[in-house]
Amino acid sequence: MKVVVDGEEKDMWALWYDDDTDEVVFIDQRKLPHRFEIYRAKDYSAVAFAIKDMVVRGAPAIGAAAAFGMAQAMVQGRKFEEVAKIIAATRPTANDLFFAIDFMRQSMAKGKEPTTAADEFVRGIVDRCRRIGENGAPLIEDGMRILTHCNAGALATVDYGTALAPMRVAHKQGKKIFVFVDETRPRLQGAKLTAWELRMEGIDHALIADNAAGHYMRTGEIDLVITGTDRVTASGDFANKIGTYEKAVVARANDIPFYVAAPISTFDFSIKSGSEIPIEERGPEEVLVVEGNSIAPEGTPVRNPAFDVTPGEYVKAFITEDGVFPPDGLKKMEW
Amino acid sequence: MKVVVDGEEKDMWALWYDDDTDEVVFIDQRKLPHRFEIYRAKDYSAVAFAIKDMVVRGAPAIGAAAAFGMAQAMVQGRKFEEVAKIIAATRPTANDLFFAIDFMRQSMAKGKEPTTAADEFVRGIVDRCRRIGENGAPLIEDGMRILTHCNAGALATVDYGTALAPMRVAHKQGKKIFVFVDETRPRLQGAKLTAWELRMEGIDHALIADNAAGHYMRTGEIDLVITGTDRVTASGDFANKIGTYEKAVVARANDIPFYVAAPISTFDFSIKSGSEIPIEERGPEEVLVVEGNSIAPEGTPVRNPAFDVTPGEYVKAFITEDGVFPPDGLKKMEW
Repeated sequence: MKVVVDGEEKDMWALWYDDDTDEVVFIDQRKLPHRFEIYRAKDYSAVAFAIKDMVVRGAPAIGAAAAFGMAQAMVQGRKFEEVAKIIAATRPTANDLFFAIDFMRQSMAKGKEPTTAADEFVRGIVDRCRRIGENGAPLIEDGMRILTHCNAGALATVDYGTALAPMRVAHKQGKKIFVFVDETRPRLQGAKLTAWELRMEGIDHALIADNAAGHYMRTGEIDLVITGTDRVTASGDFANKIGTYEKAVVARANDIPFYVAAPISTFDFSIKSGSEIPIEERGPEEVLVVEGNSIAPEGTPVRNPAFDVTPGEYVKAFITEDGVFPPDGLKKMEW
Repeated sequence: MKVVVDGEEKDMWALWYDDDTDEVVFIDQRKLPHRFEIYRAKDYSAVAFAIKDMVVRGAPAIGAAAAFGMAQAMVQGRKFEEVAKIIAATRPTANDLFFAIDFMRQSMAKGKEPTTAADEFVRGIVDRCRRIGENGAPLIEDGMRILTHCNAGALATVDYGTALAPMRVAHKQGKKIFVFVDETRPRLQGAKLTAWELRMEGIDHALIADNAAGHYMRTGEIDLVITGTDRVTASGDFANKIGTYEKAVVARANDIPFYVAAPISTFDFSIKSGSEIPIEERGPEEVLVVEGNSIAPEGTPVRNPAFDVTPGEYVKAFITEDGVFPPDGLKKMEW
């Protein structure tokens, strides 16, 4: 992703391995969007802290952190399983953590050089996102105005992003695009991260309250919606950040195509439909307290679902690294 | 409305005239929800300040403030037109201001006692809201879970509210109800005001991010939606706080009845459809800054429509002081 630091333009990943110092280096996402800071993890315990404290977030980026962290631990002469246990415990619901650790375990068993193995793992993530961008870019015509929700960007996926990848590629192809960025309450990932990424990339955009998306769909100012997803079922029902379902319903009411960008690893055909996806309800503070200030009467009861499920019927197509598939074409995908 | 102050339960208006001191007295809405404070306006300039600085907000409540302020000015021996000019300039887009001043002007011309005239004006507002409550309450069955958006409550209308009036009446009738309160970004009137009113009233509720409303509609946890409105056209298209349109579209997708509560004075049959309603775009700060803290990169472009228009086809019925009317029954209303 493009990052402008002190007026200088750089091409940067969300995190990387510094071969000179054997440090895992992160864009510190806790400090965004107000400060751009680099967090250098000198050993596996610092990597574990970075994952736990959300220096890095987003499932693929967390996987990359685990791979780099395991490689660093090997270079520094640690015992694989001891470190693996600590890294795996940082975000116990993040499957990408376990997947990355398994990949590194198998690579070590095959006698691969640790940093080479981690590099291969992370380049795989980046390559898939790049291909999502290339497959999705043809859907974006010159002059189109696109709505996105939450942050499915490079910060979450090391580079390119999923939902943002087609926009990045279209922009690089010289298409003039405009992005409406949902602020994405309660955690404001749109305002904090997506707005920052688009600004760095030089892509025209405007931040809106989540409530305003429908208005711009109705008044004809949005041509296309692209979001990411956490999980897609066999029927095309998918889970994503809370609010996605509303945008999909309103998009269809206004005949606006709704696309979901995700790597093949996000598709779980062992689940038949969205009703089987459990929805995590998180604590009340995310809703009650914004940037340290309470916005409601003390003790106000809150309900705070982190995700919602959107039925596959609302999806025009899924944009993957292997192509663009409508929901009823999912069975044609190769696994 | 019920207000609990220092453990003591009171029945209170959002503002009133103190006959002993000739002060106009307000619940200071700038301080809610964290502090309950009373603002006492000793003369017309303090009343003007209260309107301008949003000690009081909501069109009917602003009208009431103007009526009380004009009465106070008369009692204190001021010149009607001089004071009227100052009060009218406080919120130049609020029609209720001009309407209240006109009412007082005509009452003075008829030789009415000023505080009696203001009292009559404000009791008219309260009475209409009470009747909206009585007409709407039968739509709410015991055990129902209701979604509301923004604050169409007693704070905005002196007492009862519009959208909240049927809930207050149903609750007083002993029906067990539960209210999902949209926080209502960007200005958070749901979190700050509606949550406070429901808490005072003892009505079960939960605050949600605006994004979560669709999720609860889809999962069958919302039986009914009731909102207020700023303006209804001849076709039933109506303007209300940004985000209302999304809720209406998602409600219909889930076969959930969507009601709009408003006094007859809100219906403007000189306007044929919603496309004739201009949408005010407000400044970027409301979106960029929450309770004094910036949530996005400095200089992020923002679009901030204050209202949206919902087509009449999404409305099950309008709840008014004169009855409950489906959109195609509006022409049967008496004007």
